[in-house]
Amino acid sequence: MGEPTGLTNSEARELCTNPDEATKDFILSQIMYRIKDPRKSLPFYTEVLGMRLLQKLDFPEMKFSVYFLGFERASDIPTDRRECIEWTFTRKAALELTHNWGTEVDPDAKYHNGNTDPRGFGHIGLTVPDVDVACERFARLGVEFVKKPNEGKMKGLAFIKDPDGYWIEILSVSNTVGTIMNN
Amino acid sequence: MGEPTGLTNSEARELCTNPDEATKDFILSQIMYRIKDPRKSLPFYTEVLGMRLLQKLDFPEMKFSVYFLGFERASDIPTDRRECIEWTFTRKAALELTHNWGTEVDPDAKYHNGNTDPRGFGHIGLTVPDVDVACERFARLGVEFVKKPNEGKMKGLAFIKDPDGYWIEILSVSNTVGTIMNN
Repeated sequence: MGEPTGLTNSEARELCTNPDEATKDFILSQIMYRIKDPRKSLPFYTEVLGMRLLQKLDFPEMKFSVYFLGFERASDIPTDRRECIEWTFTRKAALELTHNWGTEVDPDAKYHNGNTDPRGFGHIGLTVPDVDVACERFARLGVEFVKKPNEGKMKGLAFIKDPDGYWIEILSVSNTVGTIMNN
Repeated sequence: MGEPTGLTNSEARELCTNPDEATKDFILSQIMYRIKDPRKSLPFYTEVLGMRLLQKLDFPEMKFSVYFLGFERASDIPTDRRECIEWTFTRKAALELTHNWGTEVDPDAKYHNGNTDPRGFGHIGLTVPDVDVACERFARLGVEFVKKPNEGKMKGLAFIKDPDGYWIEILSVSNTVGTIMNN
């Protein structure tokens, strides 16, 4: 056996099936991860990243709340509660941040970002108009970086950390196309 | 100190800042997690879930490939490579599945889904027109369930597992609104 390699493009294509009619209108509406303290996460995702709080749901019996955040226009968010719930679950790519009550005062409560053992989840990625401009602003706001745009092998993209240590990739179309086409 | 509770709605609102103009045009374009074997994941995400392969990128020096998948129409996917890369990174909510070459033949390679200790990442969620219909089809296709729609406290929603064990929530607008409004 030789060195492992990846699939060829045609092998990959052959493994993909044309979507079944039964999956019509499926959408990827949410990405859930757990947060220790909404007092840190809400300012980060709204002020630093520019998302809006779309919906907050509380489950007192199970002692947790979920916060849906997304890049949506304020004028699009319905004011009626039922309409807002319907609308939230038909957006693409809302973040669902789960707060199990009490973790914010529990010194042992710490969540795992998936990028050290045991690995699994990696990151969410934001496409921004200009990576350098975005990252200069993040630095001014005191955001922690995993990788600045000019560090490492992958030039022109960055990774920052949210208040729990989850990684967020910051990329732009022009930098990414350039890197890949020159690869 | 009493029992921990969540934030009130007004506390949550006060923690949220109106997005800065500097974050205009930011989008959540990708969610990355690692997969052991694309020969299992590509059929699952295309045949079972109905996504399409939008882009495959290979990084031979670092011995990995990434597969971008999403709920997009075939006719929207550009055939020109540069255009397709630009287009892929401006979609919302593409899954980026990372295959580190060789994990598929390494019996010790297993990824962590974040829902057992150490916890962190939870799941992605798909909004579907009808949870029961979708789940009956998943069952026929041999998909493993974490929770069937009528099990547990949260009726009308399900969790399935992908080939690596990552959780995928299956929900519908009507069931979810009903559950929440009756909560």
